[in-house]
Amino acid sequence: MLRWNADALKLYVILDPVLCGGGRGMVETALAAAAGGATLFQLRTPQWKKRAMAECARELLRALRPLGIPLIIDDHADVAAAVGADGLHVGQADLSPEDARKVIGPQAILGLSVGSMEEAKLAPKLGVDYWGVGPVFTTTSKPDAGEAIGLEGLAALARAATVPIVAIGGINRTNARSTIECGARGVAVISAVCGQPDPEDAARTLLTVIES
Amino acid sequence: MLRWNADALKLYVILDPVLCGGGRGMVETALAAAAGGATLFQLRTPQWKKRAMAECARELLRALRPLGIPLIIDDHADVAAAVGADGLHVGQADLSPEDARKVIGPQAILGLSVGSMEEAKLAPKLGVDYWGVGPVFTTTSKPDAGEAIGLEGLAALARAATVPIVAIGGINRTNARSTIECGARGVAVISAVCGQPDPEDAARTLLTVIES
Repeated sequence: MLRWNADALKLYVILDPVLCGGGRGMVETALAAAAGGATLFQLRTPQWKKRAMAECARELLRALRPLGIPLIIDDHADVAAAVGADGLHVGQADLSPEDARKVIGPQAILGLSVGSMEEAKLAPKLGVDYWGVGPVFTTTSKPDAGEAIGLEGLAALARAATVPIVAIGGINRTNARSTIECGARGVAVISAVCGQPDPEDAARTLLTVIES
Repeated sequence: MLRWNADALKLYVILDPVLCGGGRGMVETALAAAAGGATLFQLRTPQWKKRAMAECARELLRALRPLGIPLIIDDHADVAAAVGADGLHVGQADLSPEDARKVIGPQAILGLSVGSMEEAKLAPKLGVDYWGVGPVFTTTSKPDAGEAIGLEGLAALARAATVPIVAIGGINRTNARSTIECGARGVAVISAVCGQPDPEDAARTLLTVIES
């Protein structure tokens, strides 16, 4: 398991099996995006059964471990624990961070979705390594994401945050820089990388914008 | 966590949130069925998010622990581990029994769905406490269950089994006894108890039939 370093939030790519064209496509997208500078990957396959999820997670770990890039599993703490992934991301309706931590152990990275000041206030002070804050902009990649909080909402949550935050929701090369200026340590993207004709180039361009 | 005893397979009630009318309904159904002699409960809420699942599992544990009746969680090893349930049931597309065991620990009960001789041959020799064998009869409670294997299929799998088996799929008071005669240690039911006008009476009648 890789050690947590908040710099890994800089370009956080969520792998989507539909946009990437299945398990093999997610591995290929991850390798290309890694070559372009992606700093962390999340496997998010809400429609998949766990055995397929675990198999794909193991393939991704085989690809990413030699590169030293962490892999986080969305929602399923059991899959994360079983395959020895580097961490887990939970939303507000997933296992509570306290419950999730029991399953993944003290060393694994744990991220929490935060989309409002109320959720920020209720977030546990300890045990969570980062917040995913959003959706900043309107997104089509996650149908159940709430209403966009905008850059002002992001800035307010960045000020309230007790841990580093990554901005999420509708982020692309044209608006990524503005989220960093609001206090995000990095950006989480799905369609800005997954399904792009050249995921390596897409990642490299995003990283350049973020670092500019 | 309760110790495993294969007698708990005798009347195995799978709690369905739709048939029972939600979380509160599942607790009420469990208490009634327990009074009627149910020997084990499984929480199966495939459409629910994990936080609601964990909350409901904890309510069920509070109700069932004083009665000494085990509670098993379907599919979600992380929920089972987080709430300290007595065990987990996995299907063929869920976490592999080996992966599941890593998450729930050595003491928890682990059940595996087996529906064919091929699956029986591939089932691990160690680490699984029982098989759920079926669907014996046509069932409407689980849309993705395979084709019915019939009493002959059940008898063949009972002979091949390396652990005690519970028969599942379309079992009711009129056919329960026949599954016991084929070698099942007990029966797993959903709609024969959940949603019945009197779940206590439904359980008691089933138990009488099984023990006759």
